[in-house]
Amino acid sequence: MIYDLIIVGLGPAGVGAAIYAKRSGLNVLCLEAEAPGGLLNKINTVDNYLGFPHTTGPELAVQLFQQITKLEIPYKIKKVTEIEAGEIKKVHCDDEVFEAKYIIVASGRKARKLGLKNEANLVNKGISYCAICDAALYKGKDVAVVGGGNSAIEEAIYIAKLVNKVYLIHRRDEFRADEKLVNDLKALPNVEILYNSNVTELIGEDKLEGIIVNGDKKLDVACLFTYVGYEPEGDFLSELGITDEKGYIIVDENYQSKADGIYAAGDAILKKVYQIVTAASEGAVAALEVVRRVKNNK
Amino acid sequence: MIYDLIIVGLGPAGVGAAIYAKRSGLNVLCLEAEAPGGLLNKINTVDNYLGFPHTTGPELAVQLFQQITKLEIPYKIKKVTEIEAGEIKKVHCDDEVFEAKYIIVASGRKARKLGLKNEANLVNKGISYCAICDAALYKGKDVAVVGGGNSAIEEAIYIAKLVNKVYLIHRRDEFRADEKLVNDLKALPNVEILYNSNVTELIGEDKLEGIIVNGDKKLDVACLFTYVGYEPEGDFLSELGITDEKGYIIVDENYQSKADGIYAAGDAILKKVYQIVTAASEGAVAALEVVRRVKNNK
Repeated sequence: MIYDLIIVGLGPAGVGAAIYAKRSGLNVLCLEAEAPGGLLNKINTVDNYLGFPHTTGPELAVQLFQQITKLEIPYKIKKVTEIEAGEIKKVHCDDEVFEAKYIIVASGRKARKLGLKNEANLVNKGISYCAICDAALYKGKDVAVVGGGNSAIEEAIYIAKLVNKVYLIHRRDEFRADEKLVNDLKALPNVEILYNSNVTELIGEDKLEGIIVNGDKKLDVACLFTYVGYEPEGDFLSELGITDEKGYIIVDENYQSKADGIYAAGDAILKKVYQIVTAASEGAVAALEVVRRVKNNK
Repeated sequence: MIYDLIIVGLGPAGVGAAIYAKRSGLNVLCLEAEAPGGLLNKINTVDNYLGFPHTTGPELAVQLFQQITKLEIPYKIKKVTEIEAGEIKKVHCDDEVFEAKYIIVASGRKARKLGLKNEANLVNKGISYCAICDAALYKGKDVAVVGGGNSAIEEAIYIAKLVNKVYLIHRRDEFRADEKLVNDLKALPNVEILYNSNVTELIGEDKLEGIIVNGDKKLDVACLFTYVGYEPEGDFLSELGITDEKGYIIVDENYQSKADGIYAAGDAILKKVYQIVTAASEGAVAALEVVRRVKNNK
């Protein structure tokens, strides 16, 4: 079977696209490597998505999943390993190849690593990129959070309610996060902010036992939560040549990449604003463009 | 007081902007002529906004209002009559003038009139642009709906559940609405679709008594619900010269109009896709651009 459209990724951009594609009668298939919702599953607080005065990432992910189910949008939990361009595109997964006339890549981003020695080995043994997954494991203990953007601050506030003490380690002397969030953080009695600071070393072989900050200051923390930005997920795109040097997909005003019929939306693309609402909107616009082309047979 | 930002309109675009502006610490004021939610208050079914598998326009409007309240976003129910450009912008309302460094116009659209004789006089006396407001008044009666897009079909489906019979009058021989919606409509036993048809005359002086279709076919309907598209709300913009000939605001990629510091988002702007999610996204992007300029003092 040749699908009209394959959507890669079921975060806000992918589901946003799927809603419009399915309602327009396209023969669509969605592929997601992990759980529907994408990065939503790893963030705690969602306070800025229109229509939800307050929710959590996983709660919003459930809504997305219910929306997929209600619209009977076909999806498979499969990791895409390669996309082949052409009039009929081929989407390779580990054990299966799917074909479609159009593709929307909505594969999102993943947390950036710090790049420290032994970091990869200590993941889930004291290094975490997901407070909502791991913070509760450190009840009564001291932990550190590294970063200065909205994610770092939001997650530090969340973590502070669960642990004994949070060190917030930020490389600059001021935050780029929303003022309201920074004020909320500063009001917490068990948060200590270390400005102009970098984590320079991880202590511990098979389990994190502490960290070194700025080369000489040792902090006895049981976990280091890392929020120093994101990088695209799209290793499977390298053959297509549609990304910039960092891996972000370059798209035109219709969200089409330079490969004809291969569109992209959400955190996977190069743009100014990376938010849930922008991803959902880009998915919708890309899908409606594909709908237009399918209906015009071009 | 000179506000950092005044947002004109509290539909999805305006609230979308307000969330980001307020959370970033801007001194913001929102002005809305009617009820918060904008056009949401006049539409029944919302099935394509990410995160809500099914809701109604008014229900979503309530969520927007709760979000405004939770974030303590200041707003006033006032109709804007004119905006003056300049380094400090002046926003004129009937009885008050507000000043701000930046403006986001999110004033949306209103239903387009059919342009028939006596139409204005018959509004709310048998002519309606809002099924959710008026359909229940016609229980047991026959009514007509004119239009062929998503709005017309969605509202016809809603109306058909409340009245005796619905004539759906569409000027073309096929629908531009989503396939799923069209199928749902066609499955209803009390809906008769009239293709290639136009309403050419309204019968009745002070109350609609029927309509004439294609010059000679008389339908005895108690109400005509009109969904033939929209037009911008922005009469107050005429002095600024930032719109096209139809009244849509022309914006750049940052959603700035040609008047420096005056931004626009949502249904008020010239663009391809007019959806709740696109409006919310544009509001967010415009607001973050204003935030950047306020923080850089430029």
